[in-house]
Amino acid sequence: MNYKMIRRFIAQILAVSAVFMIPAWLISWSCGEEASADAFVQTMLLIGVISGGLAFLCKGASRVFHAREGMVCVGICWIVLSLTGCLPFYLSGEYPSYIDAFFEIVSGFTTTGATTLSDVEVLPKGIIYWRCFSQWLGGMGVLVLLLAIIPSTGGNGYTMHLLRAESPGPDVGKIVPRMKKTAVILYVLYVVLTIINMLFLVVGKMPLFEALCTAFSTAGTGGFSIKNDSMAGYSPYLRNVTTVFMALFGVNFSCYYLLLIGQFRSVFKDEELRLYLGLIFGSILLITLNIRGLYDSLWDALHHAAFQVSSIITSTCYATTNYDLWPSFAKTILMCLMVTGACAGSTGGGFKCIRILLLVKGIRRNTRQVISPQYVKVIRNNGRAINEQVVTNTFAYFAAYVMLMIVSILLISIDGYSFGTNFSAVLASMNNMGPGIEAVGPTCNFSGYSAFSKLVLAFDMLAGRLELFPIFVLFSRDMWRRR
Amino acid sequence: MNYKMIRRFIAQILAVSAVFMIPAWLISWSCGEEASADAFVQTMLLIGVISGGLAFLCKGASRVFHAREGMVCVGICWIVLSLTGCLPFYLSGEYPSYIDAFFEIVSGFTTTGATTLSDVEVLPKGIIYWRCFSQWLGGMGVLVLLLAIIPSTGGNGYTMHLLRAESPGPDVGKIVPRMKKTAVILYVLYVVLTIINMLFLVVGKMPLFEALCTAFSTAGTGGFSIKNDSMAGYSPYLRNVTTVFMALFGVNFSCYYLLLIGQFRSVFKDEELRLYLGLIFGSILLITLNIRGLYDSLWDALHHAAFQVSSIITSTCYATTNYDLWPSFAKTILMCLMVTGACAGSTGGGFKCIRILLLVKGIRRNTRQVISPQYVKVIRNNGRAINEQVVTNTFAYFAAYVMLMIVSILLISIDGYSFGTNFSAVLASMNNMGPGIEAVGPTCNFSGYSAFSKLVLAFDMLAGRLELFPIFVLFSRDMWRRR
Repeated sequence: MNYKMIRRFIAQILAVSAVFMIPAWLISWSCGEEASADAFVQTMLLIGVISGGLAFLCKGASRVFHAREGMVCVGICWIVLSLTGCLPFYLSGEYPSYIDAFFEIVSGFTTTGATTLSDVEVLPKGIIYWRCFSQWLGGMGVLVLLLAIIPSTGGNGYTMHLLRAESPGPDVGKIVPRMKKTAVILYVLYVVLTIINMLFLVVGKMPLFEALCTAFSTAGTGGFSIKNDSMAGYSPYLRNVTTVFMALFGVNFSCYYLLLIGQFRSVFKDEELRLYLGLIFGSILLITLNIRGLYDSLWDALHHAAFQVSSIITSTCYATTNYDLWPSFAKTILMCLMVTGACAGSTGGGFKCIRILLLVKGIRRNTRQVISPQYVKVIRNNGRAINEQVVTNTFAYFAAYVMLMIVSILLISIDGYSFGTNFSAVLASMNNMGPGIEAVGPTCNFSGYSAFSKLVLAFDMLAGRLELFPIFVLFSRDMWRRR
Repeated sequence: MNYKMIRRFIAQILAVSAVFMIPAWLISWSCGEEASADAFVQTMLLIGVISGGLAFLCKGASRVFHAREGMVCVGICWIVLSLTGCLPFYLSGEYPSYIDAFFEIVSGFTTTGATTLSDVEVLPKGIIYWRCFSQWLGGMGVLVLLLAIIPSTGGNGYTMHLLRAESPGPDVGKIVPRMKKTAVILYVLYVVLTIINMLFLVVGKMPLFEALCTAFSTAGTGGFSIKNDSMAGYSPYLRNVTTVFMALFGVNFSCYYLLLIGQFRSVFKDEELRLYLGLIFGSILLITLNIRGLYDSLWDALHHAAFQVSSIITSTCYATTNYDLWPSFAKTILMCLMVTGACAGSTGGGFKCIRILLLVKGIRRNTRQVISPQYVKVIRNNGRAINEQVVTNTFAYFAAYVMLMIVSILLISIDGYSFGTNFSAVLASMNNMGPGIEAVGPTCNFSGYSAFSKLVLAFDMLAGRLELFPIFVLFSRDMWRRR
């Protein structure tokens, strides 16, 4: 294990996070919020010391960097980043305990958007900014950002391993052959789309600061809102803009790159994109028909259905209405969308549409193999043969995913909430959704859970965002055994 | 596709089922229950006509019989058997509709034990007998029985394909090289264990008829009871006997054969058996501690915990107490046991312990492969290498299982029950449990669901009992395409 190289990445990522706290500190300082301004300064100083110390300890790191180093590095970076990133929350005194602050920042970085607060409007501006910015940063990935901005040292190797470990999806495609350029393209697209989103909100008369924070949360498909009633108080125009942008941020970013370079055909023929759009439009239709009677007009029902579907399939989970009051059928569709999630290579969470496609194709293939043991078939996606190892890994991923879910539900059931609440809390955490149903529904929060359960759920969020393996390997004995 | 051979099996299985109705008819007749006696006679006549017609149509059947024929044959046999087996229920007028009667017999044959009746004590004796006997017949399998009793024609081929398709587990082991002998051994063990169970019940002063019916339900791990309060009204001795026998019928029957021929070591070292027993004792311990406060003594809590654990892990689901009132932690453990289920090659339902073992081993192997792409490992069970195809099939099975569950929950959610109710109804049906929680909890029944939902749940029971593929292939286009 190349510990020195891993230390270097941790030092760099911490330094980057400290730099990103400067705007939050400036906002707190200019608004006269002394406690939170002090909290940011203290955190930045502490991070500076740790980062400097680590940088000192990693001199002369070798260039050897395998997949395992990539996994471990991503896992540790996210944990360290969360441990330090929550300090402003805790030190400012806005959160009752360090665990609550940790839960909140993990929820932010993983773009979950679950909160333990019932009143977010009273928070200092600087803290609100940091909360929303954490979702933007986590959405596309902190290591992707690091790779995009630090000068390229060495070859394609470690860039690829880090990108693979951090980016969502079963088989990360290179947009361009050079991985560093891939990271740059991803972030440029991300920044541009976020700015366009913000401009659309400003045009709809949303104040600039609110528009900035909302755009951060939407872009990361996180769902932290700056209002207690989430998006319910905003005008239909602002909600419709958000509906569209949530859906856009759930699309694989490589599709946007292909559109930019004129490859329209391969975008329109993309099987994952078709499934994603099919799920969105199909669900909106079914839910609109199902909730028709609850609203004044069909248009109203359509508006709310579209917002919730877009919000949930991308794992953003803003709310415009309490969907916990919707009929069972509509709620179950939403629960299904929670699981499917958005596209691979997007900022959205969940299991990812591409994996659903691979699972269905794999199940069909294996059913045929049970009938005719001699039957051999290669599974294809967009006409391209999928490596058999990727198929097996997808199956294993699914099994691991469900097992982690079962264990987590068992662990948090000690707190005594109903099965529906616990189930949806775990589902919402692992898929980086935010609220669930019943006691953790859209009008409630996670403050009722014990500190232990909050840690379990925070673990689930990290495992869900990093797609299990970077977190699992940290607990693997083989991993730490010296060769 | 060898249609003639399939027709022959359907004709034979129908004839066997008609023969097995004779005791039920005799019981009804001797008790003076005219309506139900007539119902049995009418059904037997109808079956005789259908069976004779089919037998006429299958003359000169070829011996070619592949895995696909085995799958289709098992799938169709179970459906036909259910369609005719429910006629006595319907014709006797005890069930309000044919759908209800069909739901009940599918629940019987698949050893689910879910019912739409709130009062079973008023049923005619013949109907009670047929209900309980259907569970005994479905427990070990109707085709296994057929293979055990009909004279062996032809080689090992079709016997193996039928046994494989009907017996639970990822990879059916032969007890002895000749498959027909395997079927005979399985049924002899089954009959002997059932008789011993009945004798223990009679010793505890249970009336003979009740003891016979209870032994049938216990042996099939079905859970149809002849009392409205299930086992709650019986003495602690009778309940403890049932606790032990439920657990015994959840063990792979090949273990008993190995014990009989003196191979104690391989039984004690069997990994699946160890997991099964570990789950039973671990769960009893945790639940006893969790529900300690609800009962008068630790002994009482232990008694109820042991009964429920044994009842649920084997998918029998008798009730002694309303576990829906237990704390969330205890209920969640029970939900987990519903999923794991009993051992392969037993009469118990669920996902089967061996598959859990294979999944966990597969996940660990694949996690290592993600770290070190060159890593190659063969998965072993009891020291024996498992064919890689079996591992992939287990993963595919799990994925198909969860997907069928999600689709079913979505379909029955139209009726408007809560998510917890729908989730547990589907879980209970697919794992052949019986009752779930909330509106389908141990003190409630399935009568509230619509006819459509009952059909969905009946489909789930069949799919769960036959382990998906024999039912899935019936809907596969490739299957019916002429070569």
